[in-house]
Amino acid sequence: MERSALGLKIPEGMRDRLPEELALLEELELKGIGLLKSWSYRKVLTPALEYKACVEPDPNQQDDLFKFFNQDGQIIALRPEFTTPIARMLTTGKTEALLPLRLCYSGDVFRNDPSRYREFRQIGVELVGSGVDLADAEVIALAMELMKALQAGGFQLNLGHMGIFTGLVEEFQIEDELRLELEDGIGRKDMVKLEKTVSQSSLPDLCKQFMLSMPHLTGREDVLEKLEGWCAIPTIRRAVETLRTIFVFLQEFGVRNSVQLDLGILRGFSYYTGTIFEGYIPGMGVPVLEGGRYDRLYADFGRNLPATGFAVNLDMIAEQIEEFELDSVDVLVFGQSPSDVIKRTRELRKGGKKVEMALDFISEQDALRVASQKGIVDVENVSKFRKRG
Amino acid sequence: MERSALGLKIPEGMRDRLPEELALLEELELKGIGLLKSWSYRKVLTPALEYKACVEPDPNQQDDLFKFFNQDGQIIALRPEFTTPIARMLTTGKTEALLPLRLCYSGDVFRNDPSRYREFRQIGVELVGSGVDLADAEVIALAMELMKALQAGGFQLNLGHMGIFTGLVEEFQIEDELRLELEDGIGRKDMVKLEKTVSQSSLPDLCKQFMLSMPHLTGREDVLEKLEGWCAIPTIRRAVETLRTIFVFLQEFGVRNSVQLDLGILRGFSYYTGTIFEGYIPGMGVPVLEGGRYDRLYADFGRNLPATGFAVNLDMIAEQIEEFELDSVDVLVFGQSPSDVIKRTRELRKGGKKVEMALDFISEQDALRVASQKGIVDVENVSKFRKRG
Repeated sequence: MERSALGLKIPEGMRDRLPEELALLEELELKGIGLLKSWSYRKVLTPALEYKACVEPDPNQQDDLFKFFNQDGQIIALRPEFTTPIARMLTTGKTEALLPLRLCYSGDVFRNDPSRYREFRQIGVELVGSGVDLADAEVIALAMELMKALQAGGFQLNLGHMGIFTGLVEEFQIEDELRLELEDGIGRKDMVKLEKTVSQSSLPDLCKQFMLSMPHLTGREDVLEKLEGWCAIPTIRRAVETLRTIFVFLQEFGVRNSVQLDLGILRGFSYYTGTIFEGYIPGMGVPVLEGGRYDRLYADFGRNLPATGFAVNLDMIAEQIEEFELDSVDVLVFGQSPSDVIKRTRELRKGGKKVEMALDFISEQDALRVASQKGIVDVENVSKFRKRG
Repeated sequence: MERSALGLKIPEGMRDRLPEELALLEELELKGIGLLKSWSYRKVLTPALEYKACVEPDPNQQDDLFKFFNQDGQIIALRPEFTTPIARMLTTGKTEALLPLRLCYSGDVFRNDPSRYREFRQIGVELVGSGVDLADAEVIALAMELMKALQAGGFQLNLGHMGIFTGLVEEFQIEDELRLELEDGIGRKDMVKLEKTVSQSSLPDLCKQFMLSMPHLTGREDVLEKLEGWCAIPTIRRAVETLRTIFVFLQEFGVRNSVQLDLGILRGFSYYTGTIFEGYIPGMGVPVLEGGRYDRLYADFGRNLPATGFAVNLDMIAEQIEEFELDSVDVLVFGQSPSDVIKRTRELRKGGKKVEMALDFISEQDALRVASQKGIVDVENVSKFRKRG
């Protein structure tokens, strides 16, 4: 039946993936997953649909989930990411896997956010069941190697640690409302907001100064020296030690040079508890990679397991790659007799050739034009071929 | 935050894909898509979300779409299949592609049907812009080759043609209500229902007998001889000619033997207009493959193009395959010093090995146990290694 005007359109924020774009995306995906598997990460896939109660970041906050009611009146959401569904899978499934467990994934995720494509492909890893610094280092090193494999030139990883801010919150007993304001100001490096929040607070001067300095605590390990005065606070001391240890490991992994510290990385309402990192490629204002340690997420699902991981927006990486060619087809077979066309096509295919078969009788000139437009390497006229033979 | 009881569950009809299952599914997918590409089909992907007005089979009928309202009050649906979204893409996009156009796809589709998994993977092709019998034959031959590539042993394709039933409907001016009843009875081979419908109708006796015989018109080409008395009806004559021609071509393609006629194949409320076929593997009561010609679908989107294609339920194929092994990891590296473990791991990875790195210091006995449980081929103790050196 004829479609209404709406039925002819693609919904807002959605896109069709045409052959060239899709082939590039899938080539990157295959390369990336190949690398992750070679580091002993096993690929899993969770369903596109989850209960909203599983994937919602915080029931009291606005979210950008795609949601609907099922027949039983329960709210279903399209997966906005894979970390939480994988936690659901591991804690409620029957799997009794050996820890630490290394998993990877790739698939489309959905965010009802009008500022960008609302369906995009993510590739990422989860390292579940280890709380040691070497686990963080492995995941960060793997993130760096993955970006190299994905040809993400000029990739830079910024590394922070939630413990520094958390340490201050604990020490000065900062209440939730103020904490969220500070977190937002520091996390978005919004100095106007941060200065206003800090000046209106009743925090001690030294703490105020430190809060204001957090967005600027970026650079090499020497940044950590600026925290020495604060290391009497146990949470901060542990964070600093962890970051130092990780840097030693990253040196061993050979990826130290493209990692810098950014102690102002905070992601509000998120599940990160320890290291937290963001990856950038030149010319992109938003991170293409996000990751860190989330040691409380699994406990929320009833199983107390530390975990760390990252996710990459593979579409953003693909958009940066300019040169890419589709695998071409070898021969266009055409001719007067369909039977001859089929026979010759079969022969060539048996010999391993990629063959397009003309369905109608076309002239040699038309065949050459079609081949050139479609990027088919060669043409073969079976009528001519048979005459010759 | 802690999850409610619902947040710990997977929604009904959804499933997690664990490493072994997913690896098998993806291996089949890769093999299948490789074959389709070698026949010059280019892979595309449409979004998971479409306007309901695009993908609904018939606004007056019950459907099994997953649906929800967007912010603007429009109804969005999860794609139930790819054929219609690809028609939407080709007719409303800016693409001016050379016809005939060969496209293929693989991806998850969604059906809110309590009797089975509500998300499953489909792989399929669309051959758009050719109405010749050779196009039908190519698509059927490709379906057969695909099933061979997917190791679907004992695969059998049943071929029918909508024109036979349509010809009767036209000739006897059968009204919609009766047509739907007959279509349903014949399509489901429900003889009790069909006999009741036929006997209560005022159709001429000869037509009644033919309707009753349709579910039994199965077998080799000789079945077509039984239609000779009906070939005065032009639509039926053309259908018979098409089927004869296609069988000649299928012989040339070398796939003739696993194709049989079943003139009772009808799919109610569907978009098929010409050839219609279903593929079965032993032990599965429902078809794993469905396809045919749909020459009016593109016109519904405002562009009058003939088209033919098929879709395979890849999950059903995967379920039939019993033996499958995950690619194994080569070495588990462990030892006392994390630095030594990292160094040796890097060396081995540079040499192309797949390596898992122990994050904690474990004993050789534990390493052997972990390796054996995870299917890792070898273990290497770097502390020992260094002592030796």
